[in-house]
Amino acid sequence: MEAQAEFQRIQELLPAWLETSRLTTPEGAVATYIPELAKIPADALGIHLMNGQGEFSSAGDCGFPFTMQSVSKVFTLILALMDRGEGEVFAKVGKEPTGDDFDSMLKLELVEPGIPFNPLINAGAITVSSLISGRSPVEQSARILTFFRELANNESLDYDENVFESELDSGHLNRSLGYFLKHNGVLEGSVEEVLHVYFRHCSIRATCADLARMGLVLAYDGTDPITGRNLIPRRFVQIAKTFMTTCGMYNASGEFAISVGLPAKSGVSGGILALVPGRYGIGIIGPALNKKGNSVAGVHLLQRMSREFDWSLF
Amino acid sequence: MEAQAEFQRIQELLPAWLETSRLTTPEGAVATYIPELAKIPADALGIHLMNGQGEFSSAGDCGFPFTMQSVSKVFTLILALMDRGEGEVFAKVGKEPTGDDFDSMLKLELVEPGIPFNPLINAGAITVSSLISGRSPVEQSARILTFFRELANNESLDYDENVFESELDSGHLNRSLGYFLKHNGVLEGSVEEVLHVYFRHCSIRATCADLARMGLVLAYDGTDPITGRNLIPRRFVQIAKTFMTTCGMYNASGEFAISVGLPAKSGVSGGILALVPGRYGIGIIGPALNKKGNSVAGVHLLQRMSREFDWSLF
Amino acid sequence: MEAQAEFQRIQELLPAWLETSRLTTPEGAVATYIPELAKIPADALGIHLMNGQGEFSSAGDCGFPFTMQSVSKVFTLILALMDRGEGEVFAKVGKEPTGDDFDSMLKLELVEPGIPFNPLINAGAITVSSLISGRSPVEQSARILTFFRELANNESLDYDENVFESELDSGHLNRSLGYFLKHNGVLEGSVEEVLHVYFRHCSIRATCADLARMGLVLAYDGTDPITGRNLIPRRFVQIAKTFMTTCGMYNASGEFAISVGLPAKSGVSGGILALVPGRYGIGIIGPALNKKGNSVAGVHLLQRMSREFDWSLF
Amino acid sequence: MEAQAEFQRIQELLPAWLETSRLTTPEGAVATYIPELAKIPADALGIHLMNGQGEFSSAGDCGFPFTMQSVSKVFTLILALMDRGEGEVFAKVGKEPTGDDFDSMLKLELVEPGIPFNPLINAGAITVSSLISGRSPVEQSARILTFFRELANNESLDYDENVFESELDSGHLNRSLGYFLKHNGVLEGSVEEVLHVYFRHCSIRATCADLARMGLVLAYDGTDPITGRNLIPRRFVQIAKTFMTTCGMYNASGEFAISVGLPAKSGVSGGILALVPGRYGIGIIGPALNKKGNSVAGVHLLQRMSREFDWSLF
Repeated sequence: MEAQAEFQRIQELLPAWLETSRLTTPEGAVATYIPELAKIPADALGIHLMNGQGEFSSAGDCGFPFTMQSVSKVFTLILALMDRGEGEVFAKVGKEPTGDDFDSMLKLELVEPGIPFNPLINAGAITVSSLISGRSPVEQSARILTFFRELANNESLDYDENVFESELDSGHLNRSLGYFLKHNGVLEGSVEEVLHVYFRHCSIRATCADLARMGLVLAYDGTDPITGRNLIPRRFVQIAKTFMTTCGMYNASGEFAISVGLPAKSGVSGGILALVPGRYGIGIIGPALNKKGNSVAGVHLLQRMSREFDWSLF
Repeated sequence: MEAQAEFQRIQELLPAWLETSRLTTPEGAVATYIPELAKIPADALGIHLMNGQGEFSSAGDCGFPFTMQSVSKVFTLILALMDRGEGEVFAKVGKEPTGDDFDSMLKLELVEPGIPFNPLINAGAITVSSLISGRSPVEQSARILTFFRELANNESLDYDENVFESELDSGHLNRSLGYFLKHNGVLEGSVEEVLHVYFRHCSIRATCADLARMGLVLAYDGTDPITGRNLIPRRFVQIAKTFMTTCGMYNASGEFAISVGLPAKSGVSGGILALVPGRYGIGIIGPALNKKGNSVAGVHLLQRMSREFDWSLF
Repeated sequence: MEAQAEFQRIQELLPAWLETSRLTTPEGAVATYIPELAKIPADALGIHLMNGQGEFSSAGDCGFPFTMQSVSKVFTLILALMDRGEGEVFAKVGKEPTGDDFDSMLKLELVEPGIPFNPLINAGAITVSSLISGRSPVEQSARILTFFRELANNESLDYDENVFESELDSGHLNRSLGYFLKHNGVLEGSVEEVLHVYFRHCSIRATCADLARMGLVLAYDGTDPITGRNLIPRRFVQIAKTFMTTCGMYNASGEFAISVGLPAKSGVSGGILALVPGRYGIGIIGPALNKKGNSVAGVHLLQRMSREFDWSLF
Repeated sequence: MEAQAEFQRIQELLPAWLETSRLTTPEGAVATYIPELAKIPADALGIHLMNGQGEFSSAGDCGFPFTMQSVSKVFTLILALMDRGEGEVFAKVGKEPTGDDFDSMLKLELVEPGIPFNPLINAGAITVSSLISGRSPVEQSARILTFFRELANNESLDYDENVFESELDSGHLNRSLGYFLKHNGVLEGSVEEVLHVYFRHCSIRATCADLARMGLVLAYDGTDPITGRNLIPRRFVQIAKTFMTTCGMYNASGEFAISVGLPAKSGVSGGILALVPGRYGIGIIGPALNKKGNSVAGVHLLQRMSREFDWSLF
């Protein structure tokens, strides 16, 4: 469909589609260990979609902010690639989907050479955090936040300190992964410092509009189409989009590729960042998660839209 | 690049690129358990690329035929989808990449509900073989061969009986997988009969030109662009291309998606079927395999071409 | 306690203890896939204990025969050792407990060199069956039956043909293990023939009295203390008793060693063969199994007796 | 053999046997990550054997002290049982051998309910350390040291501070296990504090004579036969001896039970504590380890003695 006609149709139909997708929320459950989510209704669902002219269409509960969680991993990967280059990053993390739970150690233990399978599982994202340039965890975190603000074109993007503290307190499985990586020689330096950086970027708070804008930069190969600023080299956007397609939706990524076919990344808060290459950045929040950890209603809504407009890459 | 200019450039440069890629063959090793391969030099490399006008460019050792092996799994999946529909097929096989070796039982044993992770690993492809319509293994096999002949537009496509007999004799690991699937209730009926169908389609002999033509049908969404015949519903082509992208190159599929970014499927003979959507079908033979089971030189050549012409889907 | 006093005390107290242990049967469940068990009440419990003078004490439901199932594995191991010697047997099966389910392939796949962990898990026992001397499966089976009859001093010991046929029909997981072992080079010759031998000895029907007599031979280091006939070299009895202690009760063997501390082997029919070195052979039937596959009431009764008489080896 | 005759024969033959066993040391390798071991020749081998009258026989290099490492786990288990009772201890650790490497996480991740398989693998021993009574890690460690001194009847038993510091610095895999256990709810309180207790008792330095005396207490069911002091309730000795038999020699425990048949526990320094019930406590040092982590020459020597004197429990 021609771009402008498509966008108008989205504006017309999005509210109704969103309400249909909202009906699926009872199939999911809200993650209980993140304090911020206690305040959000379980049937919340919001979407913000932005095109290259800066026009947007939004519907549902997209007013409230939420922590980015695993959605942030896409952009720390990009920053690590910009800081270190492909060679150095992929000496430390692999490129393969795993089929296992995102926080599993199984593959690290069974498979040589003991590096994380890909940068989007927890072990891989922790490793990526360690590769961000900076003389201290504070400086590394500051660089990440600055980069995220540029991408979202939003200087007020900031941490949710409660979520950060909570994850620092309760993140024993990530700590266990961290020491396992340290033992394997994948992590250097202090595990606690790396985890600080990792938990810090997971707890950056954003809105659907922020995710949509960040996704828009990826949809336009690294250039913010509204400001015209080039923020990411195109090759690193390509790498990021590939990982989003093969590993972005935890171990339901294969199914998502079949049913939706777009680069996307989900987080445990219920956020999803998706993109339609050359057209849109999309931010979704829907905290009720399916068993694989993805927003039930968010996936439902993306599937509807992708089929309607034939958006699949495949 | 505009299509005709691109094709001309391919015709000019392909022979030189092929010879450069051939230099990588010493990094690989030829599979020793397939008798036909003993006759092929280890440094063999051939490619055939065909566009929608029926023009083709070929280079290197693409004269000799080879058995399709795992390349055939793409098309038996499509036939099973045409015979049974998505619902019935995906009740028996999943949609996720595994990260494990293609012949592993690990995931079947560890993960509920005990169905194969996807239709391109051996366990999944054996299950798919059982779903092909037909009153007997002979009839199932005949329907598969007929379908493959249509796709390749080649009535002389046939089995390599030596390879078939050899696999029937030595395929104990696939037999083990088969009985495991039978135990799990995934396979019904006789395991030996299912394996007959499976080994039969793996031993269909084709040339690079045949693979290119079959890939061309996928590149044109199910319609042979030369004859104009619609052979596959578009949705099933989409499913096939998605699996080729996420799981087509064994447990190097993630890396291939990063470095090449095209739907492709490799086989243990050294064959690769790849496609550029809307443009080309590609058939490659290069029997020296890397550790993941993919043609060393074939992957090298595809990477060169994909980068040169910016073919990645991502 | 002095032997004769102990035996008298057993005779007095066994009926009451048995009834107490019978109360635990509701905690278990009868295996449903063995047709013979359908005729036995779920709360059945029987025991037969015999000393070196041929005196015996029995209580409960020890009138009916049942198939030996995994109990037979102890004696096929012994026969294989007598036929081939330690070196040849332990080139094909290991000596380690696994911690996994008895029918798991996990360890075969993950651990080099791909031989079964021990001779009492299914993969190991199938391998052991292949090592029994004989020019054909029929001859191998005949030698096993003859050996078992000698040990039980019972010429009428024979197969339950219904159970044999049923296992031959439904034993797909064992078939899968068999082909996996064939693939690994552990099994030679025909997998179906080896399985024939294996299912055949699993379906030998015995009573508690038979098991007690067979256990008595082990308790007396290989000599039937009643006939005075030496039936097994002492070293092979020692090996068998060691495996019974470390691996005899599936993956509850460690717990059984702590709570009972006697060499024992259980089977899925609910049979347990146990022994008190230098004193008794014990046969038990109690078809209600706990989650680990052992007779609930049988284990309860053995624990009571072992504590009362301080029978633990440790 | 009658006890006194046996002891005399040991005294005569031990030096020659030891030299024969020493010839096997080239098959092994000394653990490189423990600084103290750098000072010990790779072909060192020493043994000290003590009987209930306090007579002893020693041979070879038993002059130098070494850290107890995993040998200490037997006695912290006993102390935890004395502090908490069976119920509380076995709510936190299981009773089964694993077949896996001692430091594996595989079983923790795959098997419900996520408690360590047994108290002698690292995950189990760390958990046991957390169950030692005491208001602080320092007090827990002090109680352990006091208990060990009583058992060895040696008030000068103490820590090797260098080894302790080194393990605290480099023990990332144990730290990873600790946080995994914390995540699973098996460990309460501070992981670092538990690891402090754990590393502390692993670094207690002892001689072969100390191990022999500690083993002697187990050989006499908890009473030091020389002082007549009862130090451990008999039931807890029985539990300890059972675990030593089923899990004491890492994942070569099954083989050791077949070839030696005595309760024993090895450590990465090359120490082995073994015992002959009712007769001897035995301490061995031989730092060259086989692939399973046990002293090559120490196992060889124990096998020789066990066969010569028919010591196997089985």
